[in-house]
Amino acid sequence: MGLRTADQFLAGLRDSREVYYRGERITQVPDHPELGVVARHVAIDFELAEDPRFRDLASRSKLIEAATGEGATLVILIKEIGTDALFALKRVLSRGGTAEGSARLEAFYQRCRREDLALAVAQTDVKGDRSKRPSEQEDPDLYVRVVEERSDGIVVRGAKAHTSYAPCVDELIVLPSRSMAPGDEAWSMAFAIPIATPGLRLYASDFLHGLEDPWARPISTAHKMVETLTVFDDVFVPWERVFFHNRPDLAGATALTFVEFHRFTAVSYKLPLLDALVGAGIAAARANGIERAGHVRDKLTWLAGYAETVRGLIELAAQRCGFEAGIAYPDVFTTNLAKWTFARDFHHALDVVQDLAGGLLVTGPSGMDWNSAEIRPVLDKYLRGAWPADRRMAVLNLISDLTARAYGGYQAVLAIHAEGSLEAEKLAMLRAYDSERAVGLAMRLAGLQDVLAGAKA
Amino acid sequence: MGLRTADQFLAGLRDSREVYYRGERITQVPDHPELGVVARHVAIDFELAEDPRFRDLASRSKLIEAATGEGATLVILIKEIGTDALFALKRVLSRGGTAEGSARLEAFYQRCRREDLALAVAQTDVKGDRSKRPSEQEDPDLYVRVVEERSDGIVVRGAKAHTSYAPCVDELIVLPSRSMAPGDEAWSMAFAIPIATPGLRLYASDFLHGLEDPWARPISTAHKMVETLTVFDDVFVPWERVFFHNRPDLAGATALTFVEFHRFTAVSYKLPLLDALVGAGIAAARANGIERAGHVRDKLTWLAGYAETVRGLIELAAQRCGFEAGIAYPDVFTTNLAKWTFARDFHHALDVVQDLAGGLLVTGPSGMDWNSAEIRPVLDKYLRGAWPADRRMAVLNLISDLTARAYGGYQAVLAIHAEGSLEAEKLAMLRAYDSERAVGLAMRLAGLQDVLAGAKA
Amino acid sequence: MGLRTADQFLAGLRDSREVYYRGERITQVPDHPELGVVARHVAIDFELAEDPRFRDLASRSKLIEAATGEGATLVILIKEIGTDALFALKRVLSRGGTAEGSARLEAFYQRCRREDLALAVAQTDVKGDRSKRPSEQEDPDLYVRVVEERSDGIVVRGAKAHTSYAPCVDELIVLPSRSMAPGDEAWSMAFAIPIATPGLRLYASDFLHGLEDPWARPISTAHKMVETLTVFDDVFVPWERVFFHNRPDLAGATALTFVEFHRFTAVSYKLPLLDALVGAGIAAARANGIERAGHVRDKLTWLAGYAETVRGLIELAAQRCGFEAGIAYPDVFTTNLAKWTFARDFHHALDVVQDLAGGLLVTGPSGMDWNSAEIRPVLDKYLRGAWPADRRMAVLNLISDLTARAYGGYQAVLAIHAEGSLEAEKLAMLRAYDSERAVGLAMRLAGLQDVLAGAKA
Amino acid sequence: MGLRTADQFLAGLRDSREVYYRGERITQVPDHPELGVVARHVAIDFELAEDPRFRDLASRSKLIEAATGEGATLVILIKEIGTDALFALKRVLSRGGTAEGSARLEAFYQRCRREDLALAVAQTDVKGDRSKRPSEQEDPDLYVRVVEERSDGIVVRGAKAHTSYAPCVDELIVLPSRSMAPGDEAWSMAFAIPIATPGLRLYASDFLHGLEDPWARPISTAHKMVETLTVFDDVFVPWERVFFHNRPDLAGATALTFVEFHRFTAVSYKLPLLDALVGAGIAAARANGIERAGHVRDKLTWLAGYAETVRGLIELAAQRCGFEAGIAYPDVFTTNLAKWTFARDFHHALDVVQDLAGGLLVTGPSGMDWNSAEIRPVLDKYLRGAWPADRRMAVLNLISDLTARAYGGYQAVLAIHAEGSLEAEKLAMLRAYDSERAVGLAMRLAGLQDVLAGAKA
Repeated sequence: MGLRTADQFLAGLRDSREVYYRGERITQVPDHPELGVVARHVAIDFELAEDPRFRDLASRSKLIEAATGEGATLVILIKEIGTDALFALKRVLSRGGTAEGSARLEAFYQRCRREDLALAVAQTDVKGDRSKRPSEQEDPDLYVRVVEERSDGIVVRGAKAHTSYAPCVDELIVLPSRSMAPGDEAWSMAFAIPIATPGLRLYASDFLHGLEDPWARPISTAHKMVETLTVFDDVFVPWERVFFHNRPDLAGATALTFVEFHRFTAVSYKLPLLDALVGAGIAAARANGIERAGHVRDKLTWLAGYAETVRGLIELAAQRCGFEAGIAYPDVFTTNLAKWTFARDFHHALDVVQDLAGGLLVTGPSGMDWNSAEIRPVLDKYLRGAWPADRRMAVLNLISDLTARAYGGYQAVLAIHAEGSLEAEKLAMLRAYDSERAVGLAMRLAGLQDVLAGAKA
Repeated sequence: MGLRTADQFLAGLRDSREVYYRGERITQVPDHPELGVVARHVAIDFELAEDPRFRDLASRSKLIEAATGEGATLVILIKEIGTDALFALKRVLSRGGTAEGSARLEAFYQRCRREDLALAVAQTDVKGDRSKRPSEQEDPDLYVRVVEERSDGIVVRGAKAHTSYAPCVDELIVLPSRSMAPGDEAWSMAFAIPIATPGLRLYASDFLHGLEDPWARPISTAHKMVETLTVFDDVFVPWERVFFHNRPDLAGATALTFVEFHRFTAVSYKLPLLDALVGAGIAAARANGIERAGHVRDKLTWLAGYAETVRGLIELAAQRCGFEAGIAYPDVFTTNLAKWTFARDFHHALDVVQDLAGGLLVTGPSGMDWNSAEIRPVLDKYLRGAWPADRRMAVLNLISDLTARAYGGYQAVLAIHAEGSLEAEKLAMLRAYDSERAVGLAMRLAGLQDVLAGAKA
Repeated sequence: MGLRTADQFLAGLRDSREVYYRGERITQVPDHPELGVVARHVAIDFELAEDPRFRDLASRSKLIEAATGEGATLVILIKEIGTDALFALKRVLSRGGTAEGSARLEAFYQRCRREDLALAVAQTDVKGDRSKRPSEQEDPDLYVRVVEERSDGIVVRGAKAHTSYAPCVDELIVLPSRSMAPGDEAWSMAFAIPIATPGLRLYASDFLHGLEDPWARPISTAHKMVETLTVFDDVFVPWERVFFHNRPDLAGATALTFVEFHRFTAVSYKLPLLDALVGAGIAAARANGIERAGHVRDKLTWLAGYAETVRGLIELAAQRCGFEAGIAYPDVFTTNLAKWTFARDFHHALDVVQDLAGGLLVTGPSGMDWNSAEIRPVLDKYLRGAWPADRRMAVLNLISDLTARAYGGYQAVLAIHAEGSLEAEKLAMLRAYDSERAVGLAMRLAGLQDVLAGAKA
Repeated sequence: MGLRTADQFLAGLRDSREVYYRGERITQVPDHPELGVVARHVAIDFELAEDPRFRDLASRSKLIEAATGEGATLVILIKEIGTDALFALKRVLSRGGTAEGSARLEAFYQRCRREDLALAVAQTDVKGDRSKRPSEQEDPDLYVRVVEERSDGIVVRGAKAHTSYAPCVDELIVLPSRSMAPGDEAWSMAFAIPIATPGLRLYASDFLHGLEDPWARPISTAHKMVETLTVFDDVFVPWERVFFHNRPDLAGATALTFVEFHRFTAVSYKLPLLDALVGAGIAAARANGIERAGHVRDKLTWLAGYAETVRGLIELAAQRCGFEAGIAYPDVFTTNLAKWTFARDFHHALDVVQDLAGGLLVTGPSGMDWNSAEIRPVLDKYLRGAWPADRRMAVLNLISDLTARAYGGYQAVLAIHAEGSLEAEKLAMLRAYDSERAVGLAMRLAGLQDVLAGAKA
C-alpha cells in the first residue's frame, strides 16, 4: 500500500493541468466520463502492496504482473515507469553526469517517494522525417529542445508523442529519445516538471473511446489507458529539476538505459495479457466443444508455449541481473530477447485465439439484444455450444474485446511499438550478445583457436 | 449495369421483413442510420457493369475484385454469393437430384435474373456442441431442420449464423452446412425464400456500429456490412422453392460444391484489401521517411509477395477451371491453396503494416481535435513526417481503420473464418491434390516403379 | 574423472560382443578403423570431471554441455543416458513396483557406479506398422517381448532401433517405448544385460562412415557416433537383472519418465551444436566481409536469439525441478518447451548459416586440392575473402560439415527424432501445462469467476 | 533430339581441356569414374526432344522440368543455361551494344545451334572481400578482368566460382556478376571461349564424390553434377568472341537480364525435386502406417501446397511474359516471387519429410548389410512397417539421399545460393513491383487521390 490512498491520489489530479480530449479542454480529469475511468484504473496502483523499489527484480516483475492482472490485462504503470526513468538517470549520471545533476536527481527521487507521487515519462519525440537527424529537420522543434537558457533554468519547446497516462499523474519526466552527436546540444537534456506547469499541454488520444455495451466489451468499458501528444510551448524548467542539459554524450546512454529497464517492466506487464489469451483460447475450445480435436490441441500447445517462453525469459532476465550505482538491472540480452519473442508472435497469438473462438466474434449480438426480453430467449436457444449461451458468449465477448475490437488493435500495435520497435530490440540483442563463447567454439572446431576471433558481431 | 437501378433495389427492401438491430425491430431498412449505410453499400452492385454470369471465371474474378475496390475493401457480394449457391445446386442436382428439383432450381434462377434480385445465402448452422452431430445435439433445432412436411410444402425450424447482408437483399437461399448420414434426413434440404417470409427473423450484429469520426475511420464510417443470426421460427416453404429435402446423400456435396465456388469468389474480393494493405504500407513508409531503410524494404517486399501470391493463385484457379452441367468451376486445389495462403498470413500482414505505420495508429488525435481551430495548428506542426501532417494522418487513419480498430478486427476474423476455416481449406486441398505425379516420381526414384503406389493420401 | 581410465574403459570393450558393421562381424571394436573412432570419442567421458550424479540438475546440464563441447558438438552420453534410465526406473518403481524390483535396480545401480560402467539404453522398438498396437502386429516380435518365463529368468525376443553407442559400452538397459494395456503383458518389462550376452546382436549403422579428407570435414572425420539395430534373439535375462515384467501399468510411466530426464539431457547436449552454428555464422560473415550488412545482422540476431532461448529454457527447467524418490527431476513443461523450441527451428538455423556462408559450402575444393603444391597457390589467391583463404576455408569447411554433409543431415534428423518427435513433445507440453492460472484469469475477465472452469485442456 | 547423339557429344569432350579433380589433372573426362557419371548425366540432354528455343516459355519450362525428372531431380542444363546467357546478351546489346558485338553474338549463337554445342556460363566472380568493389580489392584479379588489349583480341585474368558442368561442355560463356561504375572498365566485358582454351583451368569440386552403396544412395550414385573454380590464367580471347568490353554501363544490365532468364529456368528445374519430396513424404507416411494421423495429413498438405505454389507461380511467370528484341522473357516480379518462395521454405520441406520418414534415415543399415545373406533376413523381419522392409527401405533411402546426406545438403545450399541469393531475389521483386495499383488504391481510400503518390518504393 502506498502512502496515499487512491482518493488522495485522485484529488491530487484536480489542478490547473491543461488537458484536451476530443477537441475540448477538460478541467477536472477525475470527473470526466472517460478520463475518469483512466484515473480510477491507474489508482489501482495505490491499492496494491508496498512499494517494490527496494526488492529484487524478480519480485518487482511479479508485482507488475499482479497489478496488470488487477487491471484486467491493461497496464497500470504510474509508479514503475517513473522508477525505470529515475534508475536509468541515476546509472547514467553516476558514469558521466555532474555532481549537481546527481544531487538534483536524488532530491527529486526522495520527494517522489516521500509524497508518493505518480509519474509519467515523455520520451519519444514526434520526430518529423525519420530519415533526418534532429538538427536536419525543417522545423527544429520536432525534437524537444532548449530554446533559452536563463539564470534560473531553461525554456524548452517541442513535442513528445505517446506519453502514457500523463493526464492522470503528478509529475512528468522528460528524457531524450535517441543518441545525439556534437551539434545536437540543444536537444540533449533530461528534466522533470509537474503536469500542472504553464505551457505544458496534453492532447489526449480518444482511441479507446466508448463506454457503451459492457456485455460485449467486458474489459475495455471498465479499464482505459490514455496517451498524449505532449506539447512544450516554451515551458520553463527551473535548474533544480534539470538533471542534465547540453550533453549529447549522455543522450543515447539515457535513452538506452531507460529502455533496458522499461522493456523489462514491459514484458512483466504483458504476462497477464498472454495468460488471458491462452486461458480464453482454452475456454473457447471448451465452450465450443472442440477441445479434443487434434488441430485444437496443437494450437493450444503453441499458445501455451509462446506465453511460457516469454514468462521464462523475463524470469531469467531478472535472475541474470547486474548492478550499477547500487541498482540492480536486468540482463540486457535476455530482456530484449523476451520482448522480441513477445512482439514477433503476438499477432499470431491473436490469429490462433480467433481461430478457436469462431466467427461469432464479429457477427454476434449486441448487449442491447442480450438485454431484450424478447430477443434473449432466441439467443439462449441458438447461441449455446458445449456450454450454455450465457457462459459461451461471455468467453467470446472477452475474446472479441481482446482481439477483434479497438482494444485488441490497441494491444496489437503496442506489442510492436511500445517500449521500442522490433528493430530496436534486435539491435539491442546483437549489441549485447556475448559472442565470445560461440565464436570461440567455432574457431576451435575450425582449427583456428590461435587466430584472433576479431571484434564483436 | 443490372436491370434495376440502385434506387429500385433500395425500394424493394421496404417490405414486411423482420429485422432486429441493437435490441429493436427495424421497419424500414434503407432509412435506418446504420443499416441504410449497409444497403447503400451493397447497392453499388447495381451500378456496376453487366451481369458477369455468362462470362469466364477470370472475368468474374476481376469483376468481383473491381466491385470490392469500389466498396473500399468491403465486399458487396449480393449477386455473386447467390450465383455461387445456384451453380452449386445445379451441379449437385445434375448428379443425383430429382428432375423436379432441377426444374424448380432453374425456374428460381431465371426469376432471379429476370427480376434482377439480390440474394443472401444462409449456410452455417448455429451448430451447438461442435463435438456432436445434428441428431446428437440436446436441442434438435441447432441445425435447421424440417419439422413438418405438408401437402403444399415444408415447415422448417432452426437458425443459421453469419448470414451476410440478409437484411438488404430480396431472397434467401438456404443450404446445408455439412455432410449428413442416414438418420439425418430432417436436416438435409435446400430451399429459397423471400426475406419477407413470415417466421423468418433476422437478428443483425452491430459489430461495425458507429458513424462517428469519418476522419479517423475513413472506410468504416462510409461502408458497412452486416451479418445476421437468421432464425426460422416454423417457416413455411412451398414445394416450388424446395430444391431437395430428405436427402442426406446430397447435403455434403452441396455444402462442398458451394464453398468451391464461394472460396473462389472470396479470394477474388480479398484482393483489394490486400492491395490496400500493401499500398498503405508503402505510403506510410514514405510519409514517415523510412522508405530507404533495409528492414522497411524487406517488409514491403514480403507484403507485395504475399498479395501477389494470392492474386496469382486465384488467377490460376480460374484458368485451370473444369466444367460440369455446363458450368465452369474453378480448380478446387488451387482455389483452396489461394484461400489458405490468404488466410494463414493475413495477421502477419497486419503486423507488418502496423510496424511500418507507427504507434500513432492508436495514440493519434481524434477528428474532433483535428477539426478544432485551436488544436489543429499544433497537430499540423507536430504530426508531420516526411509528408505534411494532413497527408500523413490520412494514411495513418486509413491504416488504423484497416488494422487496429473494429473494422480491422472484423476483416481479421473473416480472414480466418469466412467461407470456411483454415482446417476446412487444408482438408479440401489434401482431398483434391493429385498425388499421382509426385508419388509416381518418388516411386520411380526409389526403384519401385513396378509397385502399386497405393490409394491417395 | 571416473574411477577407470579411458584405456581401462577401452580394454573392457574387448569381449565376446556380437557387432556387425557394413556387412561384417567386428570382433575387436576399439581396433576397428571407424568403430574405434566412436570408442575413443565416448572415452572422453572418462577424462572429464567427476560423476555429476550427486550434484544438482543445473550442474549436470553444464557438465553435459561441456562434455559435448569437448566432443566437438557430438554428444558423448554413455553415462548420462544410463542415469536417465535408472533414475526413471527408480521413480516409477517407487510408485508401483515390487520391493524386489527396486532392490535389483539399486544393486545394479551401485554396481554401475562401483565399476564405473558405461551404459546404453535400448528403448525404441522397431514398431512395424505404426497404426497398430504391439499385440496387433502381424509379427509379435516387432516390439521386444518375453517369449519364455523360466525359474531363473526370462527369455526375450525382438528388436530395438536407434540404440546409441551400444557397441562401445558395457551394459544395455532395456525399457518399454510406449504405454501398454491389459493384453500387452508380454511386452511390458524393463531389464539390463551386458553387451556381451549370447543372442544379443548389434547391427551398426554406417551413416557417418568415412575418414577421408579431414580438411573438408573437420568434425566428422575425428568424432563419430553409432546407432544399432539391437536384436534380441531369444536372449536370456536372469531375474536379478529384471526390474519389472508383466506390468502393462508400468510401461507407459517408465517410457515417459525416462524421456522426461532424457529430453533434459538432450537439450543440454545440443547447446554446443547451437553455439557452433551461431559462432560459425558470425565467423563466416566476418570471413566474407558481410558482417555490416543489414540482412546479415538480422540473421545473426535471429541465430543468437534462437540459441539463447533454448539455453535459457533448459536453465529454467533445472531451476524449476521437482523431487520424487529422492531424485530431482527437471520441470516437465519447461523441458519439453526447450526441446520443442530447439527442434522446430533447427532446420531454419541451418538455412541461415548456409545463407551467410555462401555456395562454396558445396562447390569448394577438396583437401587433395588444398594439399597439392601445384593447386594450393591458386586456391590461396582466389578463395580469400575478408580473411585469407586458409582461415576462410577452415570456417566454410566447418559449416559444410555441420550443415551440408552427412554429419549435418545426421544432426538435422536427430533434431527432429531423437528423444521423441515434435509431436511427442507437444503432447507432453499440453499434458504438463498448468492451465489453472490462464483459464482462471480468463474466466475472471469474462465475469465467470464463479463458474467451474472445467477439466484440464 | 539434338543434332548430335549423346555419344558424339561425349566424344567431343576428349580434347586438351585442363581439368583438376581431387588434386589431379584429369585428361579424359568421359573415362573418369566420377566425372564420367557427370558427363553421362548431362548427355541426357542429347536424348530428349528437340531444341525448345523457338517454343514459348511455358513449353520451355515444361521441357526443363521433364529433363530434370529424367535426371532424377538433378538438373541437366547444358543447353538451357547457354540460351539464358545468349538471350540476355541479345537483349542488352539491342539496347546499347555495338553493331559489331551484336553480329559476333549472332554468329556465335548460330554456330552453337548448327554444331549442337553444350554450354556453361561463368558468372559469379570469386569476389574476395564482399564489402569492397572490384577496384577496391587488394588483388584486382578477384573479379575477372582484361589485363591486356591486343590487336587480335583481349587477355583476361581472374577466377569465377561455382561454374556448373564446365568440364562436360564445349564452350564457356563469361558474363559480369554485378553492376559496374566508371572506373570499373577493365572488369566490364562478356565473351565466349572453348573449354579447351590455353590458360583456362577448371578446378572441380568433389562435394558429390562417392559411387559406393547405390542401395543407400539411389540418386547420388547414379547422377552427379560438378562445379568448378574457373581460373583464367591470362587467357587470350579473339575479338570475334568478345561481345562487349570496357562497358561498365552494360555490366549490371547483363548480370540482371541473365538472372531474369536463369531464375525462370531454375524454378522450372526445381519442380521435380519438389515433387520428389512431396511424393516421398506421402510414400513414407504410407510405408510407416501413419498416413491417417492428423498431424501427418497436416504436414502432407503443407508440402503439397508449397510445391504447387512454386509450380503455379512459374507457370504464371511464363504466361505474363514480355518481349524484347524478338525474345520472350518471363515476368520479372513473378519469376523472382517463384524463386523466393521456393528458396525460403526449402529447408522446412526437408524438415517435414524427415519428420514423416523417421530416424532410420540416419541409423539404418548399409547396402553391405542388406546384401549379406546372413543379415538380410534380420532386416527383412525387423525393418518392415506397413510396407515390407524392401519397399519401405527403398523409400527411406531415397529420402535419406534427398535430405540427409551430401546430396541433400547440396540441394539445400543450392536452394539458397544458386541463381542468386534470397536477398537478390527480394531486391529484384521490390524493383519490379508495380506499386501503382496498390498505392493508388490506398491513396484513394485515404482521400488523397489528388496527391501525387510519389516515386516507386
